[in-house]
Amino acid sequence: MKRVLVTGASGFIGRALVPALLGRGFEVHGVARTLQPGSAGATWLPADLLTEAGRAHALSASRPTHLVHLAWEARPGRYREDPVNRLWAAASIDLLARARADGVARILGIGSCLEYGSQDGPCGEFTACRPTTLYGQAKLRTCEAYIAAGAAWGRVFVPFGPHEPEARLIPSLIRTLRAGQTFDCSHGQQLRDFVYVDDIAQQIAAVLDSNLTGIVNLASGEVRSLHSVIAHVADRLGARHLVRFGGVDAAGVDAEPVIAADVRRLRRVTAGLPAIGFAEGAARSVAWWADRLSGTV
Amino acid sequence: MKRVLVTGASGFIGRALVPALLGRGFEVHGVARTLQPGSAGATWLPADLLTEAGRAHALSASRPTHLVHLAWEARPGRYREDPVNRLWAAASIDLLARARADGVARILGIGSCLEYGSQDGPCGEFTACRPTTLYGQAKLRTCEAYIAAGAAWGRVFVPFGPHEPEARLIPSLIRTLRAGQTFDCSHGQQLRDFVYVDDIAQQIAAVLDSNLTGIVNLASGEVRSLHSVIAHVADRLGARHLVRFGGVDAAGVDAEPVIAADVRRLRRVTAGLPAIGFAEGAARSVAWWADRLSGTV
Repeated sequence: MKRVLVTGASGFIGRALVPALLGRGFEVHGVARTLQPGSAGATWLPADLLTEAGRAHALSASRPTHLVHLAWEARPGRYREDPVNRLWAAASIDLLARARADGVARILGIGSCLEYGSQDGPCGEFTACRPTTLYGQAKLRTCEAYIAAGAAWGRVFVPFGPHEPEARLIPSLIRTLRAGQTFDCSHGQQLRDFVYVDDIAQQIAAVLDSNLTGIVNLASGEVRSLHSVIAHVADRLGARHLVRFGGVDAAGVDAEPVIAADVRRLRRVTAGLPAIGFAEGAARSVAWWADRLSGTV
Repeated sequence: MKRVLVTGASGFIGRALVPALLGRGFEVHGVARTLQPGSAGATWLPADLLTEAGRAHALSASRPTHLVHLAWEARPGRYREDPVNRLWAAASIDLLARARADGVARILGIGSCLEYGSQDGPCGEFTACRPTTLYGQAKLRTCEAYIAAGAAWGRVFVPFGPHEPEARLIPSLIRTLRAGQTFDCSHGQQLRDFVYVDDIAQQIAAVLDSNLTGIVNLASGEVRSLHSVIAHVADRLGARHLVRFGGVDAAGVDAEPVIAADVRRLRRVTAGLPAIGFAEGAARSVAWWADRLSGTV
């Protein structure tokens, strides 16, 4: 029996991950800070992972064979420099040590492309990291402990899709344009690897279900300019005239010219898996927000 | 068939490792810079691993399923700050990439306790590294690439035994005392983890033959003061009166109060393995130097 404990299971990526794991035959136990409504097929554990008691309870109540550690501070506009990143690093390393001591066979921690920091081209497993944010630094410190312990560590690039926090780029673009308002953004020449959230979920499940250890990028392997992404979504909404490129200046990480992934390592465990991809993902995102904003869900 | 390529196979640890691997049923291919006399049961490949051609040749000539990468600059008094450390880091990371591309299933890189740098107590897999030597920094950079790629990485503490370079502590102590000369050393209160070279060899073979990835300390798990080690060897030679503790000041890494290993992770793969240990190892070292210095071998 494969029994997986998923932290952050009620979050943006976590809620897409639960069905992906069920589809691979895992018994899924999801941790969230508050009690969650029963999601078909998963068992929910309320626990605060920033406390020792919460971490101990999550492991002892689920007795997992596998662990996916997704939980972390992720509030837009806040997560990059919030001091709570330090607490999440310490809690995550302690969770790893407890899971190892409990004999959890497969452990996968989830990090971020922000661990790489400023780079000139696609980042791969050998790229030396230079994180420029507290979030990136804390995730990297956690990564080092996970891979030193022989666990796997996935670095998520730019996920998008249903349940994405509203203040992030694509949701705020959709909401602004649907309200008939002008969307001010930067020049948009920055290159990014956008990956649909259900594709990330399938990648995480495939890595967990493999024997891959060390670092693996979780990304599409395709780079797009923010300009092309914004234009694509705006066109779907028939509202390209409302977008004002160059209306604001990008700063910090948002101004990085390129955040791109080498996905050759990932492909070793996802070869043959179907993916939804950017265009279909964008269509689903627009449809999901349409339902939500019109009050039909 | 388990076929292992061992780099640095003619060195101090490498020559002890070859029989340990043969004993586990490996077909052993040893790389050395120059052609080596046939060692019973092993195939020798002359190659300079600091060249691309040498690395490509070593892999293509042996087509290994396993790789143990021991080769590095190790000359006493020289290796800690020699710029060649940077070349060894780059060559080692390239060797890793080539081995991965060739489908080598198990890769074990060998590093050093000097990656940890200055620490207050035993170093374990989660200890944050602060190397103070160029050697430690270069090994650490290599370690990061190896574990990111899902390989294993062993950190050797203080190995001693036959074939140890003459300028290191125990050989120079034995040679000096046997010559009837005074041995000047520091106060000797520094704590170290000494491990007999055949024990390290068995540990390396056990890690390679397991599915352990990430970092693992290669050590005895016992700390001894340099004073007790020196006194033990001097007593065996009946020459304690020739040792002058405090006769010189230790500096740099040699002055570190404690370099100790947490070996719980190692024990998971070496439980039940017989070990020679310090006292018997010291006796064998003294006997080996006695034979060598008297010209009988």
